[in-house]
Amino acid sequence: MPITQQSTGSPSEGIEQFSLVGSSVVTLDDIPIPEVQLLLDKAQYIDEHRKEVANTCNSRVLATLFYEPSTRTRLSFETAMLRLGGKVIGFAGAEQSSATKGETIHDTVKVVSQYADLIAMRHPKEGAALVAAQSSEVPVINAGDGGHMHPTQTLADLSTIQSRLGRVTDLTVGLCGDLTFGRTVHSLISTLCRFGNIRFVLISPNELKTPRYVLDRIDQSPTCSYVEVEDLAQVIGDLDVLYMTRVQKERFFNEDDYLRLRDTYILDEAKMHLAKPSMAVLHPLPRVNEITKQVDDDPRAAYFEQVRRGMLMRMALESSVLGDELPGFKSNKEVLV
Amino acid sequence: MPITQQSTGSPSEGIEQFSLVGSSVVTLDDIPIPEVQLLLDKAQYIDEHRKEVANTCNSRVLATLFYEPSTRTRLSFETAMLRLGGKVIGFAGAEQSSATKGETIHDTVKVVSQYADLIAMRHPKEGAALVAAQSSEVPVINAGDGGHMHPTQTLADLSTIQSRLGRVTDLTVGLCGDLTFGRTVHSLISTLCRFGNIRFVLISPNELKTPRYVLDRIDQSPTCSYVEVEDLAQVIGDLDVLYMTRVQKERFFNEDDYLRLRDTYILDEAKMHLAKPSMAVLHPLPRVNEITKQVDDDPRAAYFEQVRRGMLMRMALESSVLGDELPGFKSNKEVLV
Amino acid sequence: MPITQQSTGSPSEGIEQFSLVGSSVVTLDDIPIPEVQLLLDKAQYIDEHRKEVANTCNSRVLATLFYEPSTRTRLSFETAMLRLGGKVIGFAGAEQSSATKGETIHDTVKVVSQYADLIAMRHPKEGAALVAAQSSEVPVINAGDGGHMHPTQTLADLSTIQSRLGRVTDLTVGLCGDLTFGRTVHSLISTLCRFGNIRFVLISPNELKTPRYVLDRIDQSPTCSYVEVEDLAQVIGDLDVLYMTRVQKERFFNEDDYLRLRDTYILDEAKMHLAKPSMAVLHPLPRVNEITKQVDDDPRAAYFEQVRRGMLMRMALESSVLGDELPGFKSNKEVLV
Repeated sequence: MPITQQSTGSPSEGIEQFSLVGSSVVTLDDIPIPEVQLLLDKAQYIDEHRKEVANTCNSRVLATLFYEPSTRTRLSFETAMLRLGGKVIGFAGAEQSSATKGETIHDTVKVVSQYADLIAMRHPKEGAALVAAQSSEVPVINAGDGGHMHPTQTLADLSTIQSRLGRVTDLTVGLCGDLTFGRTVHSLISTLCRFGNIRFVLISPNELKTPRYVLDRIDQSPTCSYVEVEDLAQVIGDLDVLYMTRVQKERFFNEDDYLRLRDTYILDEAKMHLAKPSMAVLHPLPRVNEITKQVDDDPRAAYFEQVRRGMLMRMALESSVLGDELPGFKSNKEVLV
Repeated sequence: MPITQQSTGSPSEGIEQFSLVGSSVVTLDDIPIPEVQLLLDKAQYIDEHRKEVANTCNSRVLATLFYEPSTRTRLSFETAMLRLGGKVIGFAGAEQSSATKGETIHDTVKVVSQYADLIAMRHPKEGAALVAAQSSEVPVINAGDGGHMHPTQTLADLSTIQSRLGRVTDLTVGLCGDLTFGRTVHSLISTLCRFGNIRFVLISPNELKTPRYVLDRIDQSPTCSYVEVEDLAQVIGDLDVLYMTRVQKERFFNEDDYLRLRDTYILDEAKMHLAKPSMAVLHPLPRVNEITKQVDDDPRAAYFEQVRRGMLMRMALESSVLGDELPGFKSNKEVLV
Repeated sequence: MPITQQSTGSPSEGIEQFSLVGSSVVTLDDIPIPEVQLLLDKAQYIDEHRKEVANTCNSRVLATLFYEPSTRTRLSFETAMLRLGGKVIGFAGAEQSSATKGETIHDTVKVVSQYADLIAMRHPKEGAALVAAQSSEVPVINAGDGGHMHPTQTLADLSTIQSRLGRVTDLTVGLCGDLTFGRTVHSLISTLCRFGNIRFVLISPNELKTPRYVLDRIDQSPTCSYVEVEDLAQVIGDLDVLYMTRVQKERFFNEDDYLRLRDTYILDEAKMHLAKPSMAVLHPLPRVNEITKQVDDDPRAAYFEQVRRGMLMRMALESSVLGDELPGFKSNKEVLV
């Protein structure tokens, strides 16, 4: 089937006109907020009804086309399909480089859509997922293209916030570290702005501040606001959510600045003492040393749960796009706008 | 089990004496024409009864041993087994090179046949599939060994012709491009000669003409004939089937010839205007530029259907070799000679 | 779940206090002998009841994390899970090296244990499996870490001996080749000593003799003994089991010694003529030339059966660790000490 009209251009926010069934998901902007909320509800339902949903996608085949390796993301997509009863084919990194040498994404996706019911694609080039969605005869889910932004990471983030705080709105959300190049962070900010009522605390060294267009996005949201600060310890006590990212040494102009600032952006037990008892610590992983291992044992550490939530959200998304209904699931219509 | 007597030497053409069950398939010559016809019928049945056949190979394990990468072919074999309810193990390219370093094909195949019920093997060396078939305790299907000829590509070609034209005999079949090195083409010619009543139109530059032994094969078939031409546009109007292949620059003796002839072997909309409304365009893929993308939208373009037919024929072949009967399938005995 | 107390430290030999359910298996010393015997019984039961056990691990997911390639071992673990009805995710070699670059084993295993119910891990560094077991929230089975010792190889060896000789005790067991660096051999000796009543015949060149600590292990077992010899032909007639290993040229001090001794450690038909009719020949594979291909046809050659037994033992171990009971299996309590 051709890419549905919903998956290009800006979607209507009304749930009535929109359906994920048969749609490709290139960015999270493709999905109206009520539908995102529905996915959050589905993920929660799946978590509580593992057995009931285990045959939801029987006879379905997911193809994971990973033009660059991303083991974590690939295994998450694959496990999601397997735990719904479906099957998986695909390639990862090394093999493909020689195998499909010279073939266009268009042709590869046309071929794979003869085999599979659904494609999850990761590609180093920006825009590759959109090309794939336009070529494919089956839905394509973007598993990252250039800068490694991908809609399912943000879905994992939202699901973790929902699980820990009971809501994804009316929160003070701190984002800490590299806010210039961290596209995961930009995507999360953008989506939270669509939910609304978020106070962002943007914590970064001067060299790695949030780009103007992201700040503009917040400004455009009447119920959202932001402050920019340099010191995590100073603001951690205000936060409901702390989203950590890695600060790479090579981003700094000089070694002195790096050494001076490095520790400011490492989350350790001392800083955790200053935080609320209910705060949730998220991280898109992999981490290097920006969260010390001791913090893992703190009940507020939510980054491994975030991995599990990512798989649950992929289960919700995959089944929704395939049009396979979760047995026993009733959508909570009141939640929807 | 040892390789069956049917799979070496020249098989009897009588369906009574022959059974694919438990047989290895190294070349298509291993399979009598009535059995090829039966596979075509099975593929058609599978296409129309996806749900009914979805558990045909439950509890079976296919091993895909790909000593060189061929993503398209590997995914086709794997999807075929998964869509029959079976499971898949295997390796592809990079891993194996170090993993089985120094081990003979004999030993690797002996080991894998302790795990799997069926092996699909691709190997860069000619003859590797026969060695594997002789060593294996389970059936081996050749997924390409040297020159990348393999029986299932030809089965895909036949199934596509049958689907588009309703028959695989009594046809004018054009083969265009590199007819010297294209073993896919040689295998198709040889098999069509066994069906009979084919008029071949061999379209190639002088440097890339069909080898003598292939022409001899046509001459030996009393009901087949051929002409050799250089210009596609001149003959396209006569064709029921046009099988395109890639013309590689490095095959030419000099750059001038290449530049002069290149466009002659590119299929575009202009040339399609000269063709019959019922003509089917096939290509083994991957293509580079020998078919323009505009032709994809022409209903006569059959090369992506050919991919799907390849998967269906592999489903037919895998279930047949395993001796797993397709629920509800009745062989059309009258079709058989 | 955290690693169970059984899987670290020295386990009690009483079956009452011990359970494999939920336990990681880093070395075979983690498993009391009665439990090893139970695994042997289960493997035998599985072999005779393939159909009955085919859904034992439905809905389970095994992750194979192979930080270095080992196709044979990986396919064995995977087939075992698939033949029990479970599913498989994972990575092998090339991909991972770049994918999880910089991430600790701790974090990778924490992440993967959000997806999978069971992990089989192979890693080039000694101790990696223990780190993984301590980090994981699901059981980890060591599929080799440094020196390539791993508990499931020894389980395969034991199962083959049991199958061929009817027992794993009261035997004369010859071990031939590189007894210095062959950790497979050391692990087998150590485990057979726990069963007891074994007479070891250690056959190696002077350069490759059994290390002192392994000989001490035999000396500590009141019912076991050993002799060390240099000539296989001289002792082969006494053996119930002959365990062959590869003798690598680079282990020798000089070329002359290698050339002089090489043939002594090649098993051929001539030497097989001197052996008992009931002797079983084992080899951990891959072999190079230390067993001639002619010996494959000798019914005493057990090394390909050993591969199959390895898969059966992994089926027994995987289902046991997951706590999934084999339908219809009754443990033979009398067999247990």
